[in-house]
Amino acid sequence: MYSVTVRDHMMIAHSLRGEVFGPAQRLHGATYIVDATFSRAELDPDGVVVDMGRATEELHGVLADLRYSNLDEVPELAGRNTTTEVLARLIADRLAGRIEAGALGESARGVARIGVTLRESHIAWASYERAL
Amino acid sequence: MYSVTVRDHMMIAHSLRGEVFGPAQRLHGATYIVDATFSRAELDPDGVVVDMGRATEELHGVLADLRYSNLDEVPELAGRNTTTEVLARLIADRLAGRIEAGALGESARGVARIGVTLRESHIAWASYERAL
Amino acid sequence: MYSVTVRDHMMIAHSLRGEVFGPAQRLHGATYIVDATFSRAELDPDGVVVDMGRATEELHGVLADLRYSNLDEVPELAGRNTTTEVLARLIADRLAGRIEAGALGESARGVARIGVTLRESHIAWASYERAL
Amino acid sequence: MYSVTVRDHMMIAHSLRGEVFGPAQRLHGATYIVDATFSRAELDPDGVVVDMGRATEELHGVLADLRYSNLDEVPELAGRNTTTEVLARLIADRLAGRIEAGALGESARGVARIGVTLRESHIAWASYERAL
Amino acid sequence: MYSVTVRDHMMIAHSLRGEVFGPAQRLHGATYIVDATFSRAELDPDGVVVDMGRATEELHGVLADLRYSNLDEVPELAGRNTTTEVLARLIADRLAGRIEAGALGESARGVARIGVTLRESHIAWASYERAL
Amino acid sequence: MYSVTVRDHMMIAHSLRGEVFGPAQRLHGATYIVDATFSRAELDPDGVVVDMGRATEELHGVLADLRYSNLDEVPELAGRNTTTEVLARLIADRLAGRIEAGALGESARGVARIGVTLRESHIAWASYERAL
Repeated sequence: MYSVTVRDHMMIAHSLRGEVFGPAQRLHGATYIVDATFSRAELDPDGVVVDMGRATEELHGVLADLRYSNLDEVPELAGRNTTTEVLARLIADRLAGRIEAGALGESARGVARIGVTLRESHIAWASYERAL
Repeated sequence: MYSVTVRDHMMIAHSLRGEVFGPAQRLHGATYIVDATFSRAELDPDGVVVDMGRATEELHGVLADLRYSNLDEVPELAGRNTTTEVLARLIADRLAGRIEAGALGESARGVARIGVTLRESHIAWASYERAL
Repeated sequence: MYSVTVRDHMMIAHSLRGEVFGPAQRLHGATYIVDATFSRAELDPDGVVVDMGRATEELHGVLADLRYSNLDEVPELAGRNTTTEVLARLIADRLAGRIEAGALGESARGVARIGVTLRESHIAWASYERAL
Repeated sequence: MYSVTVRDHMMIAHSLRGEVFGPAQRLHGATYIVDATFSRAELDPDGVVVDMGRATEELHGVLADLRYSNLDEVPELAGRNTTTEVLARLIADRLAGRIEAGALGESARGVARIGVTLRESHIAWASYERAL
Repeated sequence: MYSVTVRDHMMIAHSLRGEVFGPAQRLHGATYIVDATFSRAELDPDGVVVDMGRATEELHGVLADLRYSNLDEVPELAGRNTTTEVLARLIADRLAGRIEAGALGESARGVARIGVTLRESHIAWASYERAL
Repeated sequence: MYSVTVRDHMMIAHSLRGEVFGPAQRLHGATYIVDATFSRAELDPDGVVVDMGRATEELHGVLADLRYSNLDEVPELAGRNTTTEVLARLIADRLAGRIEAGALGESARGVARIGVTLRESHIAWASYERAL
């Protein structure tokens, strides 16, 4: 199995609901270092999993919808707890949608799995991995 | 599959038995940067794999039993070769025991897998991963 | 010259004022990885710059006043642009005040300089350094 | 499952063929930080996956064939697009061959999987993983 | 003293002249992770050393002249040994020129020092620092 | 000012004397990631601060005297508190001695300063810097 990972980041504000979150129930924020991993069993004709340049652009595009925002006020996220895990899935699902829509090119349709990791600090991170 | 990782560290002395270890057969020591990863297929009602705060506390508690010690003199480890791999398993098993005992809360019983990585330097690390 | 550095982090929300900040004028947030460096020409009688344990505690204490908050609503910061540079100075000044107040012990009064670096992402950080 | 990873690096020149590579079609170069991961279900009699020292030597030996070269002129690579993915596989296959030839010792024949990751920058990397 | 650092990278081919370089006398290549640090005693009216966004753009622009090239064939570098140290200075000097030309804005003229670090691997890097 | 840094590591056991060290008064150990930085105002005729290869070898040689040992039993360290700060100075002084003895070559005598940083974990490190 081959995989390729590209890294970007976003800086957002949000609050979490639930006693388990303690002080993180208050409005605060985070820098998420975002790693998107694309995997497949065989390489495409150019010898790559996906074009790293296009993968970087698509990841950048997905994050652009959230970057520099207060997630508590983003309509699509209304009623959701924007934990690191939930955001990892949101980003993975949107990347999967872009691949299925052809945004990374025809050969990228051969991608079998997507994984997204959000590092919220030097001591904590969360991931979501799914099939395409 | 979702996962969450928290990081801590411990500083210990020990020696290894077996010619394969060369100079590491002498009493020496290590800082282990310890990453504990918890995975499950679905999130709990709060939208998390485990509460990162509690996971951090439990990892800290497991490491407290070993931290600032000479592993050669820890009774529970008598007769064992405390390689990085063996320590990774020891920590993973103890974390699994704590989850099963409810230390991370009821919803953490949904954790399906635990992985532990011990980084012994910038150029070498070892991991152990197991089901719960 | 000797120096010692300890690392912690904080997660905050804020907005910045000034056209130069572009989309960061909106309410967003950041994880700051905070490195505090203490320097002096000669070590204290224990052979250290400062006790790393106490330095870690004091840094944690200084960050506790800001952690999990919306800096736009922190009274002491009213009217200030909480850029990474400004926050680096704020933390350095508060650490200096704690040293001068004896919080790190008598021998820590020998610290000559304090530097604070705030890493806001994997590609950008800011620092402030001052004498005591 | 246990695993052990050792890290080394190599600095090479090469060019890539295919419009998808844009400016990387020109002769340029890269530092690849190379992580080789060895995995197996049970440890060997010494309590390790593989001897880290020997694994480091074998990885170094595999990279020695490519280090400080222009990959466009390496006979064995003639006609191949030396993408990061392709190089990850090449290194993994050569490590597998060395294990099968006994270079890491008899007990290393118990290694079940090898994974190789090549980091080409702080924001992009590629991996290949295979069974033995 | 305040400082701000932004990070980018470039991938180049080159060869070095001089026996001291051993195998690096052959045509090979490198990824340089480039950190540019700007320092000044007082912040500008916006509360920053330089606008991080513009600093990132200017660093990107300076690297664009070298990125994906064979430095042995870059006319401006003819006859120079493109060691990591020499490249660090070249980039620092070009950034200084851009600041003096006003590319980072009027207030950036208050920058007192520029430092550039090029990381060529996880175990080696070089820097150059100068006044403006 | 130019500088070059090379990285290596060592794994040692030791204990610290003084109540301030708390549990670190017990025999424990550490991995120190060691960065040695060499600085000078002008480059040598080859265009380098020092030959990175030789600097790496000399640092390795200096660490070889301490690596895989119990510092409490090293005769030269008898009666000294082997704090991270003290070890940073010890290594810097030994590197300075090697440069003065010509081990890095004639041109390395132009090195003006040496700095050594020992990272004992992901959250704490110490440095010593001196003139030659």
